[in-house]
Amino acid sequence: MCRWMAWLGQPVLIEELLFNSPHGIVDQSLHARMGAEPTNGDGFGLGWYGTEPTPALYRSVAPAWSDANLRELAGHVESGLFLTHVRAAIGSPVQETNCHPFRHGRWLFVHNGFIADFHVIRRDLMFAVDPALFAEVTGSTDTEVVFYLALTFGLEDDPIQALERTIGLIESVAGRHGVADAVQGSFGVSDGTTLWAVRYATNGKARSLFTSADADSVRRLYPDNHRLQRLTAEDRLVVSEPFSDLPGLWNEVPEATAVTVRHRGELEEQPFRPSPADAHVKGPALAPALDT
Amino acid sequence: MCRWMAWLGQPVLIEELLFNSPHGIVDQSLHARMGAEPTNGDGFGLGWYGTEPTPALYRSVAPAWSDANLRELAGHVESGLFLTHVRAAIGSPVQETNCHPFRHGRWLFVHNGFIADFHVIRRDLMFAVDPALFAEVTGSTDTEVVFYLALTFGLEDDPIQALERTIGLIESVAGRHGVADAVQGSFGVSDGTTLWAVRYATNGKARSLFTSADADSVRRLYPDNHRLQRLTAEDRLVVSEPFSDLPGLWNEVPEATAVTVRHRGELEEQPFRPSPADAHVKGPALAPALDT
Amino acid sequence: MCRWMAWLGQPVLIEELLFNSPHGIVDQSLHARMGAEPTNGDGFGLGWYGTEPTPALYRSVAPAWSDANLRELAGHVESGLFLTHVRAAIGSPVQETNCHPFRHGRWLFVHNGFIADFHVIRRDLMFAVDPALFAEVTGSTDTEVVFYLALTFGLEDDPIQALERTIGLIESVAGRHGVADAVQGSFGVSDGTTLWAVRYATNGKARSLFTSADADSVRRLYPDNHRLQRLTAEDRLVVSEPFSDLPGLWNEVPEATAVTVRHRGELEEQPFRPSPADAHVKGPALAPALDT
Amino acid sequence: MCRWMAWLGQPVLIEELLFNSPHGIVDQSLHARMGAEPTNGDGFGLGWYGTEPTPALYRSVAPAWSDANLRELAGHVESGLFLTHVRAAIGSPVQETNCHPFRHGRWLFVHNGFIADFHVIRRDLMFAVDPALFAEVTGSTDTEVVFYLALTFGLEDDPIQALERTIGLIESVAGRHGVADAVQGSFGVSDGTTLWAVRYATNGKARSLFTSADADSVRRLYPDNHRLQRLTAEDRLVVSEPFSDLPGLWNEVPEATAVTVRHRGELEEQPFRPSPADAHVKGPALAPALDT
Repeated sequence: MCRWMAWLGQPVLIEELLFNSPHGIVDQSLHARMGAEPTNGDGFGLGWYGTEPTPALYRSVAPAWSDANLRELAGHVESGLFLTHVRAAIGSPVQETNCHPFRHGRWLFVHNGFIADFHVIRRDLMFAVDPALFAEVTGSTDTEVVFYLALTFGLEDDPIQALERTIGLIESVAGRHGVADAVQGSFGVSDGTTLWAVRYATNGKARSLFTSADADSVRRLYPDNHRLQRLTAEDRLVVSEPFSDLPGLWNEVPEATAVTVRHRGELEEQPFRPSPADAHVKGPALAPALDT
Repeated sequence: MCRWMAWLGQPVLIEELLFNSPHGIVDQSLHARMGAEPTNGDGFGLGWYGTEPTPALYRSVAPAWSDANLRELAGHVESGLFLTHVRAAIGSPVQETNCHPFRHGRWLFVHNGFIADFHVIRRDLMFAVDPALFAEVTGSTDTEVVFYLALTFGLEDDPIQALERTIGLIESVAGRHGVADAVQGSFGVSDGTTLWAVRYATNGKARSLFTSADADSVRRLYPDNHRLQRLTAEDRLVVSEPFSDLPGLWNEVPEATAVTVRHRGELEEQPFRPSPADAHVKGPALAPALDT
Repeated sequence: MCRWMAWLGQPVLIEELLFNSPHGIVDQSLHARMGAEPTNGDGFGLGWYGTEPTPALYRSVAPAWSDANLRELAGHVESGLFLTHVRAAIGSPVQETNCHPFRHGRWLFVHNGFIADFHVIRRDLMFAVDPALFAEVTGSTDTEVVFYLALTFGLEDDPIQALERTIGLIESVAGRHGVADAVQGSFGVSDGTTLWAVRYATNGKARSLFTSADADSVRRLYPDNHRLQRLTAEDRLVVSEPFSDLPGLWNEVPEATAVTVRHRGELEEQPFRPSPADAHVKGPALAPALDT
Repeated sequence: MCRWMAWLGQPVLIEELLFNSPHGIVDQSLHARMGAEPTNGDGFGLGWYGTEPTPALYRSVAPAWSDANLRELAGHVESGLFLTHVRAAIGSPVQETNCHPFRHGRWLFVHNGFIADFHVIRRDLMFAVDPALFAEVTGSTDTEVVFYLALTFGLEDDPIQALERTIGLIESVAGRHGVADAVQGSFGVSDGTTLWAVRYATNGKARSLFTSADADSVRRLYPDNHRLQRLTAEDRLVVSEPFSDLPGLWNEVPEATAVTVRHRGELEEQPFRPSPADAHVKGPALAPALDT
């Protein structure tokens, strides 16, 4: 059911978090503890921000644990902002275009969870995507459609609000098709400067999501841990599942909550409230699909 | 720009036609002579009919010339009806779900050519697909959409007429978007009993398509060729490009022509005339997309 | 640490045993219960005997659970004798040439387990391979070298004895290098007519291995199970791990035992005793490596 | 038959040379003009030096022209020293471990060409590899063995001399096996500071090899070409095949010649003379293999 992590902080060699941390994301590809399944072996992806205007993507259908190229990249690329995702496919094909992160311009998007009975509502959701963006949808996962809906509903202006509208639309379309408990999961988004994360499920029992505690507290808690002493006030992690069992390192994000992480490690939480679809449909282009 | 071939006749070991024939389809993956490009290295597919109700598919993103598994399968599977396709991608990703043949129930479908400016008209075309079939579209090529449109317009009842309607719709949608020369190519279809092929381009200059001459004539022409002496009156090949330069083996299918090959080697040609879309739109479900 | 299974019996559609059996081998690729690891996602292979002189191979680096082509093949190919293997790599690369079964002529070979510190003794073992076979070793796993050693030591004449010599040699070479507990595992071999399996570990604690009970007993035990009622006296399975928990279906092969399964379901067990290497080294070609 | 290129100079975004140069190496993967084959679609590799002690590798079995990840990497990674290789396999499997560059510590190695009848002499060559390095040989190409022989014969101390000894050994072993014209090709080597290249064939007709002219001359020749005006005196390219047809840009490396390119664009040529094997065999460990 996928696992993901995001780093915003001082530039680090990516392998520090992917391979060298106890129970890091690559280990979670094989032995997830809190996911619906222990194995997340249906491809993975890494998106990182560097010096270029748009982030780089490396996506592969190989399991993360055995991909030699991922190990190379992680061992040679430094970044102060990156997202990684390991996938457990539920129905849709194992192909690179179905691997997260998805990208549009400077934006990256990851998701852990699912849209219920996606095959039933996929057509309506796809026709709610801005026609100017439609041709960019090249995979067949629910997540990619969620991302393009969010872009349609203003992700680039207000990510949290756009996701509230997107989830609202999905729940509304699902309702019309008799699909219950439409949305499940946690979502991660970035524009290269800020990081947003959402934990939400229609049924109120969302997949787990955690943020790292502020670095000062962590360093005080573990004065002898050399790894943790290197953390600065700049650094924040957002993860589906904690890397380590050390108490005090992680804060669980509450149900139905959106988190915003800014540079300098600032972190804000706010309620996440899906908004009814009708209020934000942009015009006639969307209406026909919603009527079918 | 792809190459394909289809066999309907006595059961043969598939490698006879894929690997052991001079300039067979696998050789064409590396050295096509009549295609837009000599190299068709962006994946391939093989669909064959056997004893099961539905045909088998083997599709891979590897070039056909280097795929060890294709060589194995071709050397161990016998079939009296199969289609093979080698792909040269134009824009859409190299992934198995974009490899031909496409399949629905007992039906297989291959295509050599393209829909012009597909990214511009993709949304309208997808919206014209029967909503009950929509969720089966898991790739991102033009061909897969053509196939599902043809299924929408009655492929299973009358394949030629359904393709005439499909091409008519595509030309009509393209026209509304200002896209010229909408359709280019040759198409191959089978239901496991009969084989249909179409050569057609909007601009009147379609990709090449050939059928093999009747076996009697071939055997009389080449009394000393042991391979050709094994041909029976049952056997027919349809190919984008002839396997061999021997004169008398191949008949070019004329422009704007549909071919039907039945068991016992019977072959009929008929004009292929795309029909205007308006006449066959099935109802309100299709209208909205066509209006956007 | 790999799982494998072999079928010798009436021709069956391969999916019956790979996909349709409870806790079949494909399920074991994701959820093995008795292996060193639950996940066997580093590629897989299927080798089957049909009408051609040599068996067919399908090997892929994708996990068995997600490979669309495996599902296709298994659903369309019937065979009365086949071996399947799901791999958990330990150090050597995930590539098709490292996937089991390995093949030489009519012979197929699978292995669950490992040669300890293979990197230390690999050179000496490879040097002991018959020079005429050396160029066929194209992967980098321990198992492939075991197979070519067994061919060197007479696999085609007497498989059990050849494996006893091979294991004897490996233990002897390992001893000279100070490597303890050299051999671990179960091995499966076939020539297309007979099936041999060996359970053996240097340290006396070998990976599990089971054979199916005779069909009569099984049918009497489960008179209402339609699947099991279809078993005939011809049919035998050899598996790393039972498919199902039903009591009476499986017999554990004892430690240090070789099993021979012949057509008509005949099954024999005999002690497996590795023989010292010195007795069977074939000549000067082997000597130098053994001296280093 | 492969194509390769190497850059030593100012740090550049890798895509400048791989994708944005006319007839760059990725274009050569599809349309080589001077190679034995126009298509080099059997995998590729990119090795680059950055801030870490060892170079990074990205190798893939996909054709270079269609690999989305290569495009990503090339568009986001800057390097002042990198080697790229596109492969046309001759017999050995298409797998990442057979893709160039090969790496050992800080060293990278690429090759265009072949060792004649490699399957005949592979065993002797492999047993001439330093036993301490033997376990690192994980692929099955001739080039990888050439690299490990060169390491055995002192590549890290004197690359040109080590290659002379290696080629001398190969010619000598081939001679004993009755294999004529043993070595064909061009070789590229780097330690992260200096770049070496060799053009050599036993039969005196080696694959093409070119170095870029000094930047001053190039800029004077093409004062209006903005790309070429960005070249500095630091910059040198070594390529199997020129990127562009502009006269004056490229100097052909003569037959049997070794080139050394140092930082600041200094370039030296010297004769390349394979030395007889007997003079440099290191000791008894190698002898047995050479005797077989």
